[in-house]
Amino acid sequence: MPAPLARLVGELSRLPGIGPKTATRLAHHLLTVSKEDAAALASSILEIKERLFHCCECNGITDVDPCSICSDPGRDSRLLCVVEQPFNIRPIERTGEFLGRYHVLLGVLAPQRGIGPDQLAIDGLLRRLAGIEEVVLATNPDVEGEATALYLARLLKSKNIRVTRLAFGMPVGGDIEYTDEVTLARSLAGRREL
Amino acid sequence: MPAPLARLVGELSRLPGIGPKTATRLAHHLLTVSKEDAAALASSILEIKERLFHCCECNGITDVDPCSICSDPGRDSRLLCVVEQPFNIRPIERTGEFLGRYHVLLGVLAPQRGIGPDQLAIDGLLRRLAGIEEVVLATNPDVEGEATALYLARLLKSKNIRVTRLAFGMPVGGDIEYTDEVTLARSLAGRREL
Repeated sequence: MPAPLARLVGELSRLPGIGPKTATRLAHHLLTVSKEDAAALASSILEIKERLFHCCECNGITDVDPCSICSDPGRDSRLLCVVEQPFNIRPIERTGEFLGRYHVLLGVLAPQRGIGPDQLAIDGLLRRLAGIEEVVLATNPDVEGEATALYLARLLKSKNIRVTRLAFGMPVGGDIEYTDEVTLARSLAGRREL
Repeated sequence: MPAPLARLVGELSRLPGIGPKTATRLAHHLLTVSKEDAAALASSILEIKERLFHCCECNGITDVDPCSICSDPGRDSRLLCVVEQPFNIRPIERTGEFLGRYHVLLGVLAPQRGIGPDQLAIDGLLRRLAGIEEVVLATNPDVEGEATALYLARLLKSKNIRVTRLAFGMPVGGDIEYTDEVTLARSLAGRREL
């Protein structure tokens, strides 16, 4: 393999979820596109590093400070949704169901990887609690996300803030027969009056 | 989503096999890597467009002309392996079983997409036949690859060249029970004396 191609395959292989075979296929695809298209991809990679940063308020990714959500006066300033990472904001926004603001922890509690509360943006969260009536904990439904939610729930309740957690259960369109028992147990435990 | 991020997601989504969700995940990953790492990826994308081209002999991807395989005197000059695309060469090279040279068609016959023999590098193949004793047809075992192999077999046999085709059958480590009937039929038809 010519050196420049091997270098690109190597760089692409460092991306998450991209193995050497996919990297090779992508590199060969880039060989076939126009020089302009390849340059557009290269420059947009450079541009995000030049122009984007974390919002001073919520830690979301933005090109204006504070970000468009934090500076939107139409948002409900009493509601704060805590997420692990900036890319968790968009799926929640797409539901159209959440009208408050966000706070990104930039990680999750993981003692076995040496990540404790001091490594997360919890100080920033505590500084934003004035006027907040409810904090929705939207960390992932896995061991680390659950542990982080429990930690934050205890911390926030001690400050008399209402704390809620996303509901876990069967996905819409799912099938009881194919739902794993942990999810089904959560789905039962969280059952609601009709 | 800030405009530079949306632009990068858009550019990444144009890559084969990368949907909007994967593109978003990759873009967010690139936000977290160092500026140097992002720049290394961007510059290696630009570098392949600057430095690589098709070998004048075989149409493989190279940074020297002719490519390292075509100019290697240790290669068997009587053997030519015909493949569809430059990236088909490497898997064959990795077997260590083929010691001849390659010819890349840069495509495959696909009448319904308007790709006939004139759109493929068949002229170049015919110009390379002097001294060739065997042409191995290594197009893919799908409808278009098979049609291309049959077309080339007829063309090359009319010039008294020995033409062979890769064997198709059960993959090594496979299981008769889980092999589809078309593959199993090919496997039976291609059975060999022990």
